[in-house]
Amino acid sequence: VALTSWVEGADGSGFPAEHLPYGVVSGGDAGGPLRPAVRIGDRALDLARLVADDVAGLAALGEGLLDGPGLGPFLAAGPQRWRAVRERLTELVCDPARRAAAAPALAPLADLRVHLPVAVADYVDFYSSIEHATNLGRLFRPDAEPLLPNWRHLPVAYHGRAGTVVVSGTPVPRPAGQRLVDGAVAFGPSLRLDIELEVGFVVGAPSAPGRPVPVAEAPDHVFGLALVNDWSARDIQAWEYQPLGPFLGKSFATTLAGWITPLDAVAGCRVPGPAQDPPPLPYLAPAGDWGLALDLEVALAPAGGTGEEVISRTSFAGVYWQMPQQVAHMTVNGAHLRTGDLFASGTVSGATPGSQGSLIELTRNGAEPLAVAGTERRFLEDGDEVVLRGTAHPAAGVTLTLAEARGRVVPGAG
Amino acid sequence: VALTSWVEGADGSGFPAEHLPYGVVSGGDAGGPLRPAVRIGDRALDLARLVADDVAGLAALGEGLLDGPGLGPFLAAGPQRWRAVRERLTELVCDPARRAAAAPALAPLADLRVHLPVAVADYVDFYSSIEHATNLGRLFRPDAEPLLPNWRHLPVAYHGRAGTVVVSGTPVPRPAGQRLVDGAVAFGPSLRLDIELEVGFVVGAPSAPGRPVPVAEAPDHVFGLALVNDWSARDIQAWEYQPLGPFLGKSFATTLAGWITPLDAVAGCRVPGPAQDPPPLPYLAPAGDWGLALDLEVALAPAGGTGEEVISRTSFAGVYWQMPQQVAHMTVNGAHLRTGDLFASGTVSGATPGSQGSLIELTRNGAEPLAVAGTERRFLEDGDEVVLRGTAHPAAGVTLTLAEARGRVVPGAG
Repeated sequence: VALTSWVEGADGSGFPAEHLPYGVVSGGDAGGPLRPAVRIGDRALDLARLVADDVAGLAALGEGLLDGPGLGPFLAAGPQRWRAVRERLTELVCDPARRAAAAPALAPLADLRVHLPVAVADYVDFYSSIEHATNLGRLFRPDAEPLLPNWRHLPVAYHGRAGTVVVSGTPVPRPAGQRLVDGAVAFGPSLRLDIELEVGFVVGAPSAPGRPVPVAEAPDHVFGLALVNDWSARDIQAWEYQPLGPFLGKSFATTLAGWITPLDAVAGCRVPGPAQDPPPLPYLAPAGDWGLALDLEVALAPAGGTGEEVISRTSFAGVYWQMPQQVAHMTVNGAHLRTGDLFASGTVSGATPGSQGSLIELTRNGAEPLAVAGTERRFLEDGDEVVLRGTAHPAAGVTLTLAEARGRVVPGAG
Repeated sequence: VALTSWVEGADGSGFPAEHLPYGVVSGGDAGGPLRPAVRIGDRALDLARLVADDVAGLAALGEGLLDGPGLGPFLAAGPQRWRAVRERLTELVCDPARRAAAAPALAPLADLRVHLPVAVADYVDFYSSIEHATNLGRLFRPDAEPLLPNWRHLPVAYHGRAGTVVVSGTPVPRPAGQRLVDGAVAFGPSLRLDIELEVGFVVGAPSAPGRPVPVAEAPDHVFGLALVNDWSARDIQAWEYQPLGPFLGKSFATTLAGWITPLDAVAGCRVPGPAQDPPPLPYLAPAGDWGLALDLEVALAPAGGTGEEVISRTSFAGVYWQMPQQVAHMTVNGAHLRTGDLFASGTVSGATPGSQGSLIELTRNGAEPLAVAGTERRFLEDGDEVVLRGTAHPAAGVTLTLAEARGRVVPGAG
């Protein structure tokens, strides 16, 4: 049975009492400084204010935990604190007797600015959808086995640029760079600007240097998840990436949703992961079901078009390499996790047309333009706006909306 | 003519008044907290203490600039402040009349702990030595052109893990991971642990998002340089790196020297860079001479050996892609620089035997073991200690020692 909240409009929205994702806001009646908040309905509950007013018993959970400006201390505090805070906040927003006490901390999102929810420490981007890796293999190596030999043995990944992770809504200037045109090196704004639909996981509790985190312990370190658009300049990437991997083709911008959904809020979405063949090495052996049944979609509002249209619908449930395996792999060499580490799934694609998470797949590398909102697209044009959306159904009658990852392409300075 | 300092042992050491590299220390008579310092001779000058005692006019240069705990505010302040502080400190350590006033801020390094000199924001590793790239190409693709087609057109690079950059002296646990053995996937401690001799540049003044930094302006953003050992597990790297580049083969540890040498201290080492053929695209066209004549060496003290022996001697002067070109390239897509960004040169190798900056080159991928200190090595064994050293001669009669990057391999937890 779904919870009932006294917060107007929360019940039946994608942000009911069962969700309570975390973010960082500023502005509103309370003035300028950044402060941690949770979203409920179309409002933000100012956690620093709740602590100051001693409303929900949050202050007793630890000094400095939620005073802001960022979520760092709370994220670092680990799963017991995460659960204690979540429990108290759920009680608060569901108990009508506490409405008056909490009201001063509640402000409409329309009056607030939403900031990057976490100071990103290291950003790792995986490549964990077998459909995506297969699609790209077929496009680029049509006569060979689409998956490279290592793909089924380890979750392939690389480090991205943490400094250019931006919050949803931030414009994305078109990157300039080198590319190969008819075999000659050219320079200019990217002509093959693409998106990548991904789910990002945010590390809360750090791990110790030199100590790998086992699969079974990974969820104790990961606080939550948020949609990620890993914008990609395919022409820049294609020319630069041998032999050290993507660099400028990715590092200009990565959009992160403004609100982090706690793993606990989507616990009811856990499903068995896909069969893995060959069975992974012992350090990657699954512990529990960590497929996550999240419905994902990509919407595109093309410049000069009639509006927004959904160009891809897919599910996160079947992604081959799962979050705990990614954590175990990332730390098996002794590298530790830090609070604020962000690791993304890699592009989430299905096997059927219209279920791929990038334009390079949807348009077969530009060969088959996509009809969208009264116009067509091979890759992104200036003025195009992309919105990644997700929904979760963790219990009967409960639908959560993952906070969107939105960005509009604008001309670059180059 | 060399400067004369009243600090005992400074003149004629590698850390005379002309050097004054920056670091972060704790301990000593002043107690526990971290504080910024400059090194002179075998002593550290506590900058927070100088500010508190108002000794060198540093307080007037800006509130919070040098109070610590870190160097961040000072690095962010930009070249005018860097020069003003350097000028005042040089006067201070050269004016015998100010000895008594400064003495309380001066402590022997032996009494202090030296910390990571900078909170690393993003870590980028280039691949800028043509000799190194050629050596590796010949080893791995003996029948093909050793340089890949993009190499002479752009400074190839990738993002590394900022969270595992450690200060000189930190032990390096041997990483475990997957590798291919006779065509089969195996797991265990790396059997081909290697070093990479590199020069790292530390960003001070940030740049604006979306605005590429031109070659000519790059030196206004880069505060200084320090030796870097980019430890590499060749067997892990070889199996994992297709198609997204190095990940676990590098991310377990990167050693950074404890003291950052200001670019201004080595201005006298600037020499013309090597001829670049083809000429780089306009955004990479050199502005001024940014070859840096630094003499570098790798010393190895093998476990069970008779001591330490130098196994490689080389020069940084001829490295193909130079620091300002690296900055211009890294930002040409609109990615901005943040204070604490660290970008390393990539392995510095010469063309002659004994001048290569990695064991994989020195031993021809393990085929020709190296005789060292009474024993032999193909790759590193547990207990081996590696020390990277460098010297600069910025003026007649002046020799600066770059702070060493030292690390001992210890068994991993895996």
